[in-house]
Amino acid sequence: LLSDILKDMHPADIAEIYEELSIEEAKFLYFLLDDDTAADVLIELEEDDRLRFLKALPSEVIARRFIGRMDSDDAADVIAELDEDRQKEVLSYLEDISMAGDIVDLLNYDEDTAGSLMAKELIKVKESWNIVTCLRSMRRQVEEVDDVYFVYVVDNDGVLKGTLSLKKMLLSSTDTLVRDIYNPDVIAVSADVHSEEVTNIMDKYDLVVLPVIDSIGRLVGRITIDDVVDYMREEAEKDYQLASGITEDVEASDSVWRHTRARIPWLMIGLAGGLLGSRVISAFEGNISEHPEVAFFMPLIAAMGGNVGIQSSAIMVQSIASGGLGFDTNFKKLLKEVSIALLNASALAALAFIYNFAIGSHFALTFTVASAMFSVVMFASLFGTFLPLLLNRMKIDPALATGPFITTLNDISGMFVYLILAAYFFEVFL
Amino acid sequence: LLSDILKDMHPADIAEIYEELSIEEAKFLYFLLDDDTAADVLIELEEDDRLRFLKALPSEVIARRFIGRMDSDDAADVIAELDEDRQKEVLSYLEDISMAGDIVDLLNYDEDTAGSLMAKELIKVKESWNIVTCLRSMRRQVEEVDDVYFVYVVDNDGVLKGTLSLKKMLLSSTDTLVRDIYNPDVIAVSADVHSEEVTNIMDKYDLVVLPVIDSIGRLVGRITIDDVVDYMREEAEKDYQLASGITEDVEASDSVWRHTRARIPWLMIGLAGGLLGSRVISAFEGNISEHPEVAFFMPLIAAMGGNVGIQSSAIMVQSIASGGLGFDTNFKKLLKEVSIALLNASALAALAFIYNFAIGSHFALTFTVASAMFSVVMFASLFGTFLPLLLNRMKIDPALATGPFITTLNDISGMFVYLILAAYFFEVFL
Ligand SMILES: [Mg+2]
Ligand SMILES: [Mg+2]
Ligand SMILES: [Mg+2]
Ligand SMILES: [Mg+2]
Ligand SMILES: [Mg+2]
Ligand SMILES: [Mg+2]
Ligand SMILES: [Mg+2]
Ligand SMILES: [Mg+2]
Ligand SMILES: [Mg+2]
Ligand SMILES: [Mg+2]
Ligand SMILES: [Mg+2]
Ligand SMILES: [Mg+2]
Ligand SMILES: [Mg+2]
Repeated sequence: LLSDILKDMHPADIAEIYEELSIEEAKFLYFLLDDDTAADVLIELEEDDRLRFLKALPSEVIARRFIGRMDSDDAADVIAELDEDRQKEVLSYLEDISMAGDIVDLLNYDEDTAGSLMAKELIKVKESWNIVTCLRSMRRQVEEVDDVYFVYVVDNDGVLKGTLSLKKMLLSSTDTLVRDIYNPDVIAVSADVHSEEVTNIMDKYDLVVLPVIDSIGRLVGRITIDDVVDYMREEAEKDYQLASGITEDVEASDSVWRHTRARIPWLMIGLAGGLLGSRVISAFEGNISEHPEVAFFMPLIAAMGGNVGIQSSAIMVQSIASGGLGFDTNFKKLLKEVSIALLNASALAALAFIYNFAIGSHFALTFTVASAMFSVVMFASLFGTFLPLLLNRMKIDPALATGPFITTLNDISGMFVYLILAAYFFEVFL
Repeated sequence: LLSDILKDMHPADIAEIYEELSIEEAKFLYFLLDDDTAADVLIELEEDDRLRFLKALPSEVIARRFIGRMDSDDAADVIAELDEDRQKEVLSYLEDISMAGDIVDLLNYDEDTAGSLMAKELIKVKESWNIVTCLRSMRRQVEEVDDVYFVYVVDNDGVLKGTLSLKKMLLSSTDTLVRDIYNPDVIAVSADVHSEEVTNIMDKYDLVVLPVIDSIGRLVGRITIDDVVDYMREEAEKDYQLASGITEDVEASDSVWRHTRARIPWLMIGLAGGLLGSRVISAFEGNISEHPEVAFFMPLIAAMGGNVGIQSSAIMVQSIASGGLGFDTNFKKLLKEVSIALLNASALAALAFIYNFAIGSHFALTFTVASAMFSVVMFASLFGTFLPLLLNRMKIDPALATGPFITTLNDISGMFVYLILAAYFFEVFL
């Protein structure tokens, strides 16, 4: 029967089937799931599908059947998606008051901080206990925690002192004191640290869990790697999409309408930029009419500015995202970009020169194309390097500076430089 | 003293300092580290720095002081970087023959497969054992394994049957049989599965370790999430750089020369494309000389083709990377892209029309710009969708289709369409 098949499936797989169902079918399927599985499936749904489903249920059912069966981090994430009145209602129906308290605590942390990634469930022991006391306490605590990776050691005030590895426990005699065998070298983060830094720390030190402390060092929660992996994926996809001119987070399975809405803003900016560019070119109408060969290289110069600008901004965005992990200062980075730009600009300008020389263009055109190429590549490099740094300092996501934005700006300025140079060289040579 | 400071530092932090040192300084610092730390630092170095350092050491030292102290996966990765004669020499100096055998096994797996991500160290128990036998055997096995997340259960042939959670062990009496308490629902991958699929599976099911089996189901190794996180990061950076026209994997800290080498190939393609475009435009020299206003909108049309193409290809590349996780067929995806493209193309063409109408352009120009906009946006969308699918079917990384490649192609084809349309409409209206 259907319910037997569902019993053998992983909640993440059931969630994938759910995404394809109508709300009536989804409700029917829901009654075939046991409560714990139903809660797990709910977490795995995409936000819009989850909201649609929850809207159709009374607050009491949401609290008892779903929220009450989740880990505190997932519970807080799901509740945060509801509107405020609904949040209060659901919280009031929770049977476990301490869980409701945990959720309220978690809702207070800002998005994109360690606090928003952490869960309250963890296993802790006091440094004054021995292994037997530890095991007894752990048997109780373990009921609430799904996966035990680490046992945290705290003092009487709840201040994090270190970790106790299960391996150490297996290898020690039962009357050993925690204080004599725990590992005091524990890496922890404060709850207000940015999620990107959490990611960098867990990656750098190869951590599976990261304890979170408050401002006086008390253990308040722990972040598990699975949630950080989700965060990393979402951030990487967002950056990739931003670099490609997509402003809203979309998935291939989203609606045509949502896709259009995500793409049209940058296209509008591109259109506005292009129309502005057309005004710039029209100022040189006379020159173009007299020397139409100037127009031949306009798209080339515009394109090279765009291409170079994207390369430079991509390197800067990545180096900002990986944090202070390098020793280079911004000045050193800028200096390096100038060197790279000089090499690229010289090579491209030389090739443009040789090409025009080879096909027998007159000197005015040859010099215009080569010198515009050099200027545009230099300018686009510096601009592409500088803009992400500026945005970052203004606390704006530097990834916004990549893609169509930098391309459009470089298209226009490239056109301007090219036509100015053309006006000058054609004056000189012809 | 310096060596005391180093003792308190994490190997990953020491590695960061190492990157800044000359080979002599690095050697001096190396003698201050104890052997286990030295091996850990070596793994954390970037490939080029590691190779530079290893080149200066005799094979025996590499084997005894470094390789012999690593996990099998790291050992195999480091050895794979040496040339073949050196590999054999280092392997022959290893004291632990079974480790040498593990490394040779691991070297056989293809890059980007589950086998290349896995390590041989793991803890396994037989299904016929009881908890006491398990604990005794685990105490022995645990010496070799750093972190115990799972205990694997195998039958007498070594075929993977399931997992035994430490939690279950803590909660069961000592004479319980493994066969009665193990969890048979274990997710495993075959060693030849692609690394990208490994990533998707570990992310989807929130796994910290993933057992790897051979073609007849025997347990051969396990993949830990930290290595998958590294892989994810590298892949995300690579895709981001490819989308930005950077062909080699570079970091902000790499040399100017390496950066230039990573960027120049796409710039050359862009240059070649632009020069080809200039030939296309030159075929219409007469028209441009007579109607220079045609040139005003050339960069706009070229830019819009590029912008739209990048958006479409980015969505396709992401949807291919996340695997068969959606239910949409390629045909359905293409159909959806056509709908999105129609909406965007109509909106942009309408705006271009209104703009030209408003500034009083003549009808020929107005119709040319609007209809070229429509055609170019439609064409670029379809091309951007289709090309990654084609590359993927040809077993080429679809991410290559993004960025400057698609932009350049769309620039040229856009120019061609625009000028053909101009020739036609100016014939009709003027
Ligand atoms: Mg949260
Ligand atoms: Mg790592
Ligand atoms: Mg590592
Ligand atoms: Mg969680
Ligand atoms: Mg970011
Ligand atoms: Mg959806
Ligand atoms: Mg462009
Ligand atoms: Mg490997
Ligand atoms: Mg996940
Ligand atoms: Mg999850
Ligand atoms: Mg490893
Ligand atoms: Mg890829
Ligand atoms: Mg380096």
